[in-house]
Amino acid sequence: MQKGKASLIFEKDVYIEHGASVVGSKEGEGPLGKYFDVVESDEMAGADSWEKAESRIQSKAVEKLMEKSGVTETEIRYILGGDLLGQLIATTFGVKKYNIPLLGLYGACSTMGEGLGVASILVSSGCADKVIALASSHFASAEKTFRFPLEYANQRPFSATWTVTGCGAVLLTKDKSEKTIAKINGITAGKIVDFGLKDAQNMGACMAPAAADTISRHFEDFGTVPNDYDKIITGDLGVIGQKILIDLLSNKGYDISSKHMDCGIEIYDSDKQDTHAGGSGCGCCASVLTSFIFRQLQNGEWRKVLFVPTGALMSPVSFNEGLSVPGIAHLVSIEAV
Amino acid sequence: MQKGKASLIFEKDVYIEHGASVVGSKEGEGPLGKYFDVVESDEMAGADSWEKAESRIQSKAVEKLMEKSGVTETEIRYILGGDLLGQLIATTFGVKKYNIPLLGLYGACSTMGEGLGVASILVSSGCADKVIALASSHFASAEKTFRFPLEYANQRPFSATWTVTGCGAVLLTKDKSEKTIAKINGITAGKIVDFGLKDAQNMGACMAPAAADTISRHFEDFGTVPNDYDKIITGDLGVIGQKILIDLLSNKGYDISSKHMDCGIEIYDSDKQDTHAGGSGCGCCASVLTSFIFRQLQNGEWRKVLFVPTGALMSPVSFNEGLSVPGIAHLVSIEAV
Repeated sequence: MQKGKASLIFEKDVYIEHGASVVGSKEGEGPLGKYFDVVESDEMAGADSWEKAESRIQSKAVEKLMEKSGVTETEIRYILGGDLLGQLIATTFGVKKYNIPLLGLYGACSTMGEGLGVASILVSSGCADKVIALASSHFASAEKTFRFPLEYANQRPFSATWTVTGCGAVLLTKDKSEKTIAKINGITAGKIVDFGLKDAQNMGACMAPAAADTISRHFEDFGTVPNDYDKIITGDLGVIGQKILIDLLSNKGYDISSKHMDCGIEIYDSDKQDTHAGGSGCGCCASVLTSFIFRQLQNGEWRKVLFVPTGALMSPVSFNEGLSVPGIAHLVSIEAV
Repeated sequence: MQKGKASLIFEKDVYIEHGASVVGSKEGEGPLGKYFDVVESDEMAGADSWEKAESRIQSKAVEKLMEKSGVTETEIRYILGGDLLGQLIATTFGVKKYNIPLLGLYGACSTMGEGLGVASILVSSGCADKVIALASSHFASAEKTFRFPLEYANQRPFSATWTVTGCGAVLLTKDKSEKTIAKINGITAGKIVDFGLKDAQNMGACMAPAAADTISRHFEDFGTVPNDYDKIITGDLGVIGQKILIDLLSNKGYDISSKHMDCGIEIYDSDKQDTHAGGSGCGCCASVLTSFIFRQLQNGEWRKVLFVPTGALMSPVSFNEGLSVPGIAHLVSIEAV
């Protein structure tokens, strides 16, 4: 059912049957380390390039998901996936061995929100019974794409985030089972919000306005307030973006300060791990969702959460040409079952 | 309704209310020149970079679409769009001024098929009443991304295609009106098909196996044969890819030789315009669809067509690292009303 300008409430709930997370060693050493399914000690994942390593991490996440859920390749109707690399090559080479139709998505680090959103529509509308949504990133392939060669060993400003090496994959189903972790009951699609910021080393600030826009529209469309949720979880705003988000929503009359959690802040111990503003990348919130967040929902710690991956819509070319870094945030409303 | 492994037949038809096409001067001088809505004589479209020029062409297509259809920005629920550039920056900066939620898609040159497919699902399932699907490419921004600097003036093998400067935008609606051009009654989503080819200057050969796979699965899922259609239209296989597609489908028992049309072959006069194997790029089939193909459907020349955009899933990085160029093709079944 359409709600407001961009929200949907599903008349038929969509079930999160299972999730799988594969991360790198740095993420494994972080505060959430014990929750991930696989911690890959080799940053190359046995491959000979960073991009292939990211693809292998995607493949491992899909395999882990199939193993945990007992669902086979032939039962999956569509894979919806994306990553940060130009032309989504991590996804192409990560999922091409599966004989499953692919819908490639790009929403920068908001991709997991976009993927879960579209996947939920497919399941809720009866277009598919079982769908996988996934997103990945890799520290080194992202540094190579967006920042500096690792060998250059540049200094990083404190506003910069550290791209997570990881992939999260989620299996959505139309039917509930004993294994079902949670359900998705609605979404709010993101709009591009551009405050004109141009600092690609401060992406939290670039994305926070988009998160504030999507979250406030969600409250309006669903007629809810922050206290209706156990957690309001953004993707990778980091410590600077978090502050801006809380301020912007406060200006709109919503105090989320006691409810807000950012996957980028949680995934590393910034002081000990030298990650500055926090973690980022498509794989950041995707891997935290499929590990810690799902566990909290499964254990009854949380009943109702908003999952709001945030993306910075830039490329090396747009940055070098002096363009701004617009943000986008796609919201998924998740409830325990 | 789900059909086969990856097809959907819509219980509620989705209407193509209108289309708009904006192309560059070379496309305007080609055989289909008179059908495009706007031929942009300035390849820079008044901008100071190729990427911004592509974004402006996207904006112009959206504006033309709104003008032709009389639909306003506030009535559009979602834009689904994509392009060939890294991190979809042509789309980000092309549509960011509109206050409309965005779902960014990447399927290389198959993006218009993926966009029409997902948009149809949104409309058919009642998740949206009015949606825009669009895709663009620009010769110079694509050359810069994938091939050589224009100033280098490299020689092009005869198997190479010429990236189309253009954008096609389609307005899909749940209700039929007097203006309605055609309807979408089903889709078949594409799988990645990789024959292991590595020649990025022969993308027709890389994509043809994916087109053959999707088209043959469509025939099986829908219980149809080539003669049920007036045209079976691929995106940008070019003359070499066309031959391979016809051969591959012939091996599967389907003779499409008299029904096949390729947008890349039609958009240029290869002999006079020195475009070798034909046109390519997301904007190729998107602009041909929204001009010539829609006209043929509107005039009753064609009643039933399959529109099958084809994409080569590669990036400069994957190419330089010696990876293959897998293909994907998303099919949309269109009927006159």
